[in-house]
Amino acid sequence: MVVGLVETAVPTAKSTISSVVKKPTFLSSDPIINVARGDPTIYEPYWKKMGDRCKVVIVGDEFMSYFCNTMNLCWFLLPELDNAIRTLHRVVGNAMVDDDRFIIVGNGSTQLFHALLYALSSPDLPEPINVVAAAPFYSSYPEETKFLRSKLYKWAGDANCYDKDEPYIEVVTSPNNPDGSIRGTVVNREGGKAIHDLAYYWPQYAPITSKADHDAMLFTFSKATGHAGTRIGWAIVKDKVIAAKMVKFIEVSSIGVSREAQLRAAKILGVIADDCRNLDLKGENFFEYGRRLMSERWGKLRELGMKSNGVFSLPKYPRGYCKFTGEYTDSNPAFAWLKSNEVLNCENLLRDESKIITRGGPSFGVDSTYTRVSMLSRDVEFELLLERLAAIKGTVNGN
Amino acid sequence: MVVGLVETAVPTAKSTISSVVKKPTFLSSDPIINVARGDPTIYEPYWKKMGDRCKVVIVGDEFMSYFCNTMNLCWFLLPELDNAIRTLHRVVGNAMVDDDRFIIVGNGSTQLFHALLYALSSPDLPEPINVVAAAPFYSSYPEETKFLRSKLYKWAGDANCYDKDEPYIEVVTSPNNPDGSIRGTVVNREGGKAIHDLAYYWPQYAPITSKADHDAMLFTFSKATGHAGTRIGWAIVKDKVIAAKMVKFIEVSSIGVSREAQLRAAKILGVIADDCRNLDLKGENFFEYGRRLMSERWGKLRELGMKSNGVFSLPKYPRGYCKFTGEYTDSNPAFAWLKSNEVLNCENLLRDESKIITRGGPSFGVDSTYTRVSMLSRDVEFELLLERLAAIKGTVNGN
Repeated sequence: MVVGLVETAVPTAKSTISSVVKKPTFLSSDPIINVARGDPTIYEPYWKKMGDRCKVVIVGDEFMSYFCNTMNLCWFLLPELDNAIRTLHRVVGNAMVDDDRFIIVGNGSTQLFHALLYALSSPDLPEPINVVAAAPFYSSYPEETKFLRSKLYKWAGDANCYDKDEPYIEVVTSPNNPDGSIRGTVVNREGGKAIHDLAYYWPQYAPITSKADHDAMLFTFSKATGHAGTRIGWAIVKDKVIAAKMVKFIEVSSIGVSREAQLRAAKILGVIADDCRNLDLKGENFFEYGRRLMSERWGKLRELGMKSNGVFSLPKYPRGYCKFTGEYTDSNPAFAWLKSNEVLNCENLLRDESKIITRGGPSFGVDSTYTRVSMLSRDVEFELLLERLAAIKGTVNGN
Repeated sequence: MVVGLVETAVPTAKSTISSVVKKPTFLSSDPIINVARGDPTIYEPYWKKMGDRCKVVIVGDEFMSYFCNTMNLCWFLLPELDNAIRTLHRVVGNAMVDDDRFIIVGNGSTQLFHALLYALSSPDLPEPINVVAAAPFYSSYPEETKFLRSKLYKWAGDANCYDKDEPYIEVVTSPNNPDGSIRGTVVNREGGKAIHDLAYYWPQYAPITSKADHDAMLFTFSKATGHAGTRIGWAIVKDKVIAAKMVKFIEVSSIGVSREAQLRAAKILGVIADDCRNLDLKGENFFEYGRRLMSERWGKLRELGMKSNGVFSLPKYPRGYCKFTGEYTDSNPAFAWLKSNEVLNCENLLRDESKIITRGGPSFGVDSTYTRVSMLSRDVEFELLLERLAAIKGTVNGN
């Protein structure tokens, strides 16, 4: 999959490279750049520009009840958010949201992942159900699955190596976090269950080639629009029994989801959908803006890679016909999946030599020559990141 | 504890009472009254009156980051909410909030209960830690403890019957849900851990006799002010290691708490604190208002009981000197803990004869002669409730 500028890793012992790297490329007073987490502050300028159009006002007596809509299976889902989610998916064309699909809102898609583990497992099975994902997988899945030591489900590692004849749930992230690849299930055994995490299946990150139509799909406000502090995610679920179990999970774990957060998400998703449908719009709609920004950043990063003479590799992605934009587009993933061709531990290299904090390969189920770098930081941070990466190259090459 | 109008239960078989109750006391077209859940809509008129003073306005680019304050152990806690919580507790005098105490915000106190189970248990113990509460206990504790079948903790029932020589966590709710009693730990064994759920320790429900100062205390916005839809709870914790484990729990289960909800809670708690300190305030502060309302409702309910000739009993509470109001006050709990003296199943009686939905004793670890009735419904619902309860009395007495 990694078919970057240099195809093959050339592992070098840390001690060797240390002798090559004559001096650190930063001053001790230089700020640390933390791009370990995908904090999506990249979109702030866009939403600042949108000013009052996205404003929400909430007075003292609004949203006092636990209940949003007792007629809905998901009784804590604000009807405005239900509508906004379905409308936006129809406009973008990235997921099937026919009326018979259930929308479940959660405190971020993280809570919905937990809800799905609960809903897809069964207290009647003699053993916990196996949860697998193909490496490299999202680093939080193992911890989320393991941390409460549930007897309902257990982490069973890399889906590519899964050979047990037992019930399982495969988690598929597409585009994938960390490496941006487009994925499907790999185990494909009868009776297997799947969770499709489509957090990054939006036009700024990847071409929208078809309407996703899986049994259980997860989306999150934070990666769609950049509003991570709002903590809103949603699941689109076909089966009523599974949907009801998820609602039960969210009831027992937090008695629903903040109405204020839902109102704001509804407002912002609604504005985006309106803009996407408005052919007379002056300026760009949000996804065009996001795609341009991500594409510029990836351009700069790849350009840097071209000059690096093989210190790092980056994955390469096929172009695809995006039905949303109506043209062939590139993937511009939310993370750069960096592979070092010079040292064994890419995360340590970046931390020790350049004060860049990233998340190393082992967190994602692969070796430490890889590390994940967020592409969603603020401009000033991204420019500094490029500068420091460039300096590493220089040092290693003895410039 | 139940020392109502009639001290002793007189269980009667359902078939017997059915023959006494000649006809249902409602028409099939009458609406169902659901007072099973403590939906705190009682306070809506107050917050409506407060109009713009409690308004929050959020524009498009606010709260985009996951992080609120990276200098704080609880990095997802809005500093404004931290301040508002500490200020309000100081003004009310119901909990110790010295600077060395940690405030952890959660998606309702429900999530914080889960976080505390996680924080107080240990993967190093050979067996799950026992979780107990003295019956009658809050009906959600057993389910919350059991539903994920964790190997870290397990539900071990009524604290009064707990006789194992094993590690345990005792959950103490005071004033208690469902019965309004003031409580302390009952197991009191060396090394025992405790969670103090003080959701109802506010002046409208009980006299504030002292500053609570336990290791781990839970409060919730929904019961303090009535804003259940906002899903904000907070824990006050002494020990840094426990606080850090709770933060970890909330990170892994929902990556923090909605900033919009926190902002609104900060605003409203701030307004209440301001009003409580403002001696020139025209009209009542929120707690005076709430106490008057609750006191009126309890007066009406007890009056009804006086006339019922022993069909139902209600608990009786001692008066206490409330340091907040500076006078001796009554307890006016959020729930009426009704005991039927005529039938074995009080919940069924109310449901079948009066279309009143309540939550029966077995959910709280006691027998079905008891049932819990919310006192926090809207006025129109509460009046209807009284009317129907009065009709039961009439029917049973043959009037």
